[in-house]
Amino acid sequence: MHPSTLALIRAAIAEDVGCGDVTSEFFIPAESRSKANLVAREAGVMSGSEVARTVFSEIDAATDVRVLVADGTAFEKGDTLMEISGPTRAVLTAERTALNFLQRLCGVATMTRRYVDAVKPHPVKVLDTRKTTPGWRLLEKAAVKDGGGTNHRIGLYDQVMVKDNHLVAAGGFAALQAAIDRVKAARPGIKVQIEADRLEQVEKFLALRGVEMILLDNMSADTLRAAVELVAGRVFLEASGGMTLSTIGTVAATGVDAISVGALTHSARALDLALDFV
Amino acid sequence: MHPSTLALIRAAIAEDVGCGDVTSEFFIPAESRSKANLVAREAGVMSGSEVARTVFSEIDAATDVRVLVADGTAFEKGDTLMEISGPTRAVLTAERTALNFLQRLCGVATMTRRYVDAVKPHPVKVLDTRKTTPGWRLLEKAAVKDGGGTNHRIGLYDQVMVKDNHLVAAGGFAALQAAIDRVKAARPGIKVQIEADRLEQVEKFLALRGVEMILLDNMSADTLRAAVELVAGRVFLEASGGMTLSTIGTVAATGVDAISVGALTHSARALDLALDFV
Amino acid sequence: MHPSTLALIRAAIAEDVGCGDVTSEFFIPAESRSKANLVAREAGVMSGSEVARTVFSEIDAATDVRVLVADGTAFEKGDTLMEISGPTRAVLTAERTALNFLQRLCGVATMTRRYVDAVKPHPVKVLDTRKTTPGWRLLEKAAVKDGGGTNHRIGLYDQVMVKDNHLVAAGGFAALQAAIDRVKAARPGIKVQIEADRLEQVEKFLALRGVEMILLDNMSADTLRAAVELVAGRVFLEASGGMTLSTIGTVAATGVDAISVGALTHSARALDLALDFV
Amino acid sequence: MHPSTLALIRAAIAEDVGCGDVTSEFFIPAESRSKANLVAREAGVMSGSEVARTVFSEIDAATDVRVLVADGTAFEKGDTLMEISGPTRAVLTAERTALNFLQRLCGVATMTRRYVDAVKPHPVKVLDTRKTTPGWRLLEKAAVKDGGGTNHRIGLYDQVMVKDNHLVAAGGFAALQAAIDRVKAARPGIKVQIEADRLEQVEKFLALRGVEMILLDNMSADTLRAAVELVAGRVFLEASGGMTLSTIGTVAATGVDAISVGALTHSARALDLALDFV
Amino acid sequence: MHPSTLALIRAAIAEDVGCGDVTSEFFIPAESRSKANLVAREAGVMSGSEVARTVFSEIDAATDVRVLVADGTAFEKGDTLMEISGPTRAVLTAERTALNFLQRLCGVATMTRRYVDAVKPHPVKVLDTRKTTPGWRLLEKAAVKDGGGTNHRIGLYDQVMVKDNHLVAAGGFAALQAAIDRVKAARPGIKVQIEADRLEQVEKFLALRGVEMILLDNMSADTLRAAVELVAGRVFLEASGGMTLSTIGTVAATGVDAISVGALTHSARALDLALDFV
Amino acid sequence: MHPSTLALIRAAIAEDVGCGDVTSEFFIPAESRSKANLVAREAGVMSGSEVARTVFSEIDAATDVRVLVADGTAFEKGDTLMEISGPTRAVLTAERTALNFLQRLCGVATMTRRYVDAVKPHPVKVLDTRKTTPGWRLLEKAAVKDGGGTNHRIGLYDQVMVKDNHLVAAGGFAALQAAIDRVKAARPGIKVQIEADRLEQVEKFLALRGVEMILLDNMSADTLRAAVELVAGRVFLEASGGMTLSTIGTVAATGVDAISVGALTHSARALDLALDFV
Repeated sequence: MHPSTLALIRAAIAEDVGCGDVTSEFFIPAESRSKANLVAREAGVMSGSEVARTVFSEIDAATDVRVLVADGTAFEKGDTLMEISGPTRAVLTAERTALNFLQRLCGVATMTRRYVDAVKPHPVKVLDTRKTTPGWRLLEKAAVKDGGGTNHRIGLYDQVMVKDNHLVAAGGFAALQAAIDRVKAARPGIKVQIEADRLEQVEKFLALRGVEMILLDNMSADTLRAAVELVAGRVFLEASGGMTLSTIGTVAATGVDAISVGALTHSARALDLALDFV
Repeated sequence: MHPSTLALIRAAIAEDVGCGDVTSEFFIPAESRSKANLVAREAGVMSGSEVARTVFSEIDAATDVRVLVADGTAFEKGDTLMEISGPTRAVLTAERTALNFLQRLCGVATMTRRYVDAVKPHPVKVLDTRKTTPGWRLLEKAAVKDGGGTNHRIGLYDQVMVKDNHLVAAGGFAALQAAIDRVKAARPGIKVQIEADRLEQVEKFLALRGVEMILLDNMSADTLRAAVELVAGRVFLEASGGMTLSTIGTVAATGVDAISVGALTHSARALDLALDFV
Repeated sequence: MHPSTLALIRAAIAEDVGCGDVTSEFFIPAESRSKANLVAREAGVMSGSEVARTVFSEIDAATDVRVLVADGTAFEKGDTLMEISGPTRAVLTAERTALNFLQRLCGVATMTRRYVDAVKPHPVKVLDTRKTTPGWRLLEKAAVKDGGGTNHRIGLYDQVMVKDNHLVAAGGFAALQAAIDRVKAARPGIKVQIEADRLEQVEKFLALRGVEMILLDNMSADTLRAAVELVAGRVFLEASGGMTLSTIGTVAATGVDAISVGALTHSARALDLALDFV
Repeated sequence: MHPSTLALIRAAIAEDVGCGDVTSEFFIPAESRSKANLVAREAGVMSGSEVARTVFSEIDAATDVRVLVADGTAFEKGDTLMEISGPTRAVLTAERTALNFLQRLCGVATMTRRYVDAVKPHPVKVLDTRKTTPGWRLLEKAAVKDGGGTNHRIGLYDQVMVKDNHLVAAGGFAALQAAIDRVKAARPGIKVQIEADRLEQVEKFLALRGVEMILLDNMSADTLRAAVELVAGRVFLEASGGMTLSTIGTVAATGVDAISVGALTHSARALDLALDFV
Repeated sequence: MHPSTLALIRAAIAEDVGCGDVTSEFFIPAESRSKANLVAREAGVMSGSEVARTVFSEIDAATDVRVLVADGTAFEKGDTLMEISGPTRAVLTAERTALNFLQRLCGVATMTRRYVDAVKPHPVKVLDTRKTTPGWRLLEKAAVKDGGGTNHRIGLYDQVMVKDNHLVAAGGFAALQAAIDRVKAARPGIKVQIEADRLEQVEKFLALRGVEMILLDNMSADTLRAAVELVAGRVFLEASGGMTLSTIGTVAATGVDAISVGALTHSARALDLALDFV
Repeated sequence: MHPSTLALIRAAIAEDVGCGDVTSEFFIPAESRSKANLVAREAGVMSGSEVARTVFSEIDAATDVRVLVADGTAFEKGDTLMEISGPTRAVLTAERTALNFLQRLCGVATMTRRYVDAVKPHPVKVLDTRKTTPGWRLLEKAAVKDGGGTNHRIGLYDQVMVKDNHLVAAGGFAALQAAIDRVKAARPGIKVQIEADRLEQVEKFLALRGVEMILLDNMSADTLRAAVELVAGRVFLEASGGMTLSTIGTVAATGVDAISVGALTHSARALDLALDFV
């Protein structure tokens, strides 16, 4: 588990438990032990099981968590996803934080699965974006993978993405080629992607040395098709811009290599999960 | 600003920037400076302005951020919420993280405002829950206040809430009174709330010494009205359970003191905001 | 164990051990193992055994600590409180830090027990205050419980306490009621206590909506008795102000619900404990 | 300021303020500003002014603190030690934590001053010990200096101190000389002190190469005088063992170089200080 | 400055200063101020000026540091690189840590410059490796850039590099293509490089879809030339393996795109710099 | 293991692994397990085995590391130093960081051993200095011990060292004696060393009360011999200044007690070690 994930889990426990769970302390005998099932109240795709397990073990190492549905697996309403046993106090103290993590991550995986299904049978990738919940980047990227999606760059450090604002600030076309040359000279292992809003830009960018990917932003299906034809496989083409479940199929049919969908992470809602004591 | 909020901001920057924003570094001249407006692409309620400002100042202390719409204020589509100026590299590096924070917090405040409007003109409070994004508890609680909502307990430490699982584990009714007495003896400054699923339980709980609040969970409007009549102001009554914008008005009319709504935080979607360079 | 307690333990070890225990390293063979008894040189009440145990295990996980006297239990001069065995180097390195923790926490528990005994047979609680050693709040609050005392609010966040300085800054009586209404609207789960220095204030504060507790500060026994009669059980009454073991009995007899004693934590002296090698 | 001191201050603020000072937030207008004097309710010696100042500035950088009595200076009952001005909310939120630090540190400095006065006119140093409050080592060592005392080793790392338990574990006299030789070979810059309980031991230890200091533990005044005569200035002599204000004068007269007093730190009580709003 | 760099600087100060610079404290008057020049005792290339400046400002914000020779600039023996003024205590306390950082980073930049000069006039890049001082990755990568070198991947996360051990564990050639396909599907923005030890491997790897770079490890100049001819610009070619200043020129002449040199960071020696008080 | 060492190890892992080892993740099956030998490609002295072991266990607790050559032991080219087994992914992810630590620490130990051998048969100690890699002080001091060297002071806190710059700032000779007296009064357990550049200074410093060690800086062998004769064992004599393997023998013959060598740490090069899979 990445150290920053463990830090987030600990921060989440700290903000909920503070100086102590005053209800469990006074209403639950210290020696009481319980079993509980984490149950799906609606269908979805699993993600975050390791995080949920860690919430329980961080609260009390004596809890025992068995994961019945692995990350990336679809489940139905009523399915038991995890079985937890251990000191009742610990199970109750951990319950809400574990659910809060799991509900959101399953929500992202489930939303992704819907988008992935919506582009079938086209051989196009559904990409995530950097529009993730601050602090949750790695967890949500993993949830996208669990849903069948593909990870775009993790952050600002592992790929160049030249957007319109960069173009304006960088100067004209000659300055752009110079900047690409500089980055290729300084960091040969880093890919360069550039954002185009119009078909003419795509043509122009194809003339640049060192551009491996082009982002086609907010283009109509016709323009996307024209871009695919123009590029003819020379660079990787990603479409983006306000994708929904009802529009993505049309975009997938244009022949682009990938479609990025901000909604996978910024608008996924929590899945309905609950902890039932047995 | 709470230390844990600053820690979350720094973790969010770290996860996005990593070892450096390779695009800004190579495509934006170090001496370039820019102005940009943070603009609403849809109407909503402001929240999180201080967090967004801090993202910019943590990336580069030379950025200057002017907040035009204060937290808690409603805005229209097209309104400029903040003006940012400073080194172009810093503005571009901070853009996405600042937006990710602000879009979610404005989303929670806007969702809350809708629920608060839906219960008018009844003198009932709209309460949040502990169903918050792990790591974001204090920020989301503040966003609920910005939307006009009321904060329930912050965590497990500042109020007793005896739920059904506690009742089962605690033992019978006599054990319950004994536990309440213990908590009153040990922590006289802490309030005690107890969850009732049926009207008979409300009657029973009224006989207990030291219960200041009762949670009426998943009851019909008729049962809620009966509970309000039965209790007659002796304890604080909170209704909960799957509230939506279309059902909350009916519940508000029953006369309960407060209604808690998990959806304020667990299902708010990101508001559409953007950074426009000028 | 609360994360902040573990952090304090680690800071304490770091400040003592620094870059290494140069005496143990050079004078004790690495393979030497020892047994030692932690012995009481005077009578008292146990508190902090888990902290002491953790000091040893943090220094070396190979140490073994058996607690013979549980927290909250009284012991006599000469009693063995804990048995420690393990690598001699580790036991010697940990000795002073473990004793420093235990001596202070047993000191607080023992002092509390004396005050609790001094109020018998009155049904009054002995409360702690926020006058704790910075960094030690939770540990000293636990020691007060181990001594038989009752915990007042943990900090500034879990209860409202309106003191004289707040009254001055808040404005007059109308402003006071407005502020109480605001806090009740915003945080219904939080109790409100207000400090009164004179009997007339008590009468005035009883007229306020939403005050659950009154602090009677520095009043004579006669005034306290008058306040108890006046209030007649309508709110919780706490007496405070320079309590000593010789004066607290008189205050207890006035009928107040609780008496808070800053000396429990700010003036407890270290109990005399020692580690004897066997 | 040492990083660990700043960390302790921040931990102390966190444990008191938690998720917010709910009283100041609701009862004090955000724009209210105040002046307050930190006043001595009893005479003493100042220590910890920088820590107290930092508590205020950490809570709110807009507070202004003027120190009127410098660390190490004696003050009388009624003297104003510091003047604080700034946002009323911040001053009230910081008050208790600042006082908790200052009362304890002034308590240590004041206690030390009494011991230093009690050994006059003998040219003997009053030493502190490692019996400090865990987490407070550097602060309490500084308070001892402010009181006119002398610092013994800071921790286990900056001086060798061979105590009885080390002697037992190290083996016989030959092993002892070998260990001293090893430490001299490995760390020539570190001084070696050895504890003697009987006069015969002092004689024996004088025969060892490389012992710079001897600790005379729990010896009568007569034995101490004999030890001073025997040693005749060849090594530094420190007396220790249950020193009180009434016994230390006699020990000082024996001619030892220094006397260590655990009570300086483990049994100092908090000085009575208060914050008066003006 | 990257947070991890600031953390390293603070750790470095902590390990040197510990509980205080006992020499400066007792031998330098608190009010003494000094000016000092940081002077080169041998020629080299500057790197790390910001780190050195931060060491001084972290020790005391009242120090003033003026950088006379910018990072990446060559200097001669006797040149003044920085001017420092401020409290004498702070300057002396910071001196060694600042020099320790600067001497090593200038050492890396200077070593890199020599290798860069040695490959002239060939248009080949001199690459660093992951053989950096643990904790110093970003600083040493920056020093390589200051010396005129080119950065290879920063770590394990921003580029795929399939080495011989991966090949063995991955399985045969079919498994290799499958793994490359998987990584291209999951992370389209990440480049793939593969290590070849023999010319036949190069030929084989050229047949793989999705390989952008080949590492030619420990090949003779003749084999390298053959590989360059075979590849004919289709992928990026990097040579590696025990490069020295006397062998790198021959390798550069073979026509490879880049040469990686572990010695830039793992064997650079500290440059001779000193702080002269004026 | 010192907490700061563990923190350095974790920082080193974080800087290399970042958000994940993308090669191992996609090219190595999760269930693959491997054995590997850490082999010496050249002769040397072992140091840092515990650090290397911890790198593996931090990456994955399921790795198993057996140390075949203990710290401080000499090994030959071709010797296997450690055996590692465990999940292949973890072994490959940890490989470079573990080697980076071990190569540098063995380099320091090996360099030290050469200097120690070069002063034989003289009974003189080879001392390290504070010219260590920032962040690595304790590790490199341990490596010096493993090589047979002797540790000088660990940092600025555990010994006084008055250098020329201190002398200038402190004022004249009378001020110097006063400062020594102050430090002896305030910290009797701390040794005082003073730096002399000329023989006359040595004579002068011998007249000072409380100087235990003199540093003879940059003196010729003749001057050193004269100083040894003059001092006649009254204080500890350390020679320093640009020592090399070819000059240190001559200095050792002068009769000084110790010789400090900055090159042990600031110019040691990484030893050639490798991980061979079996």
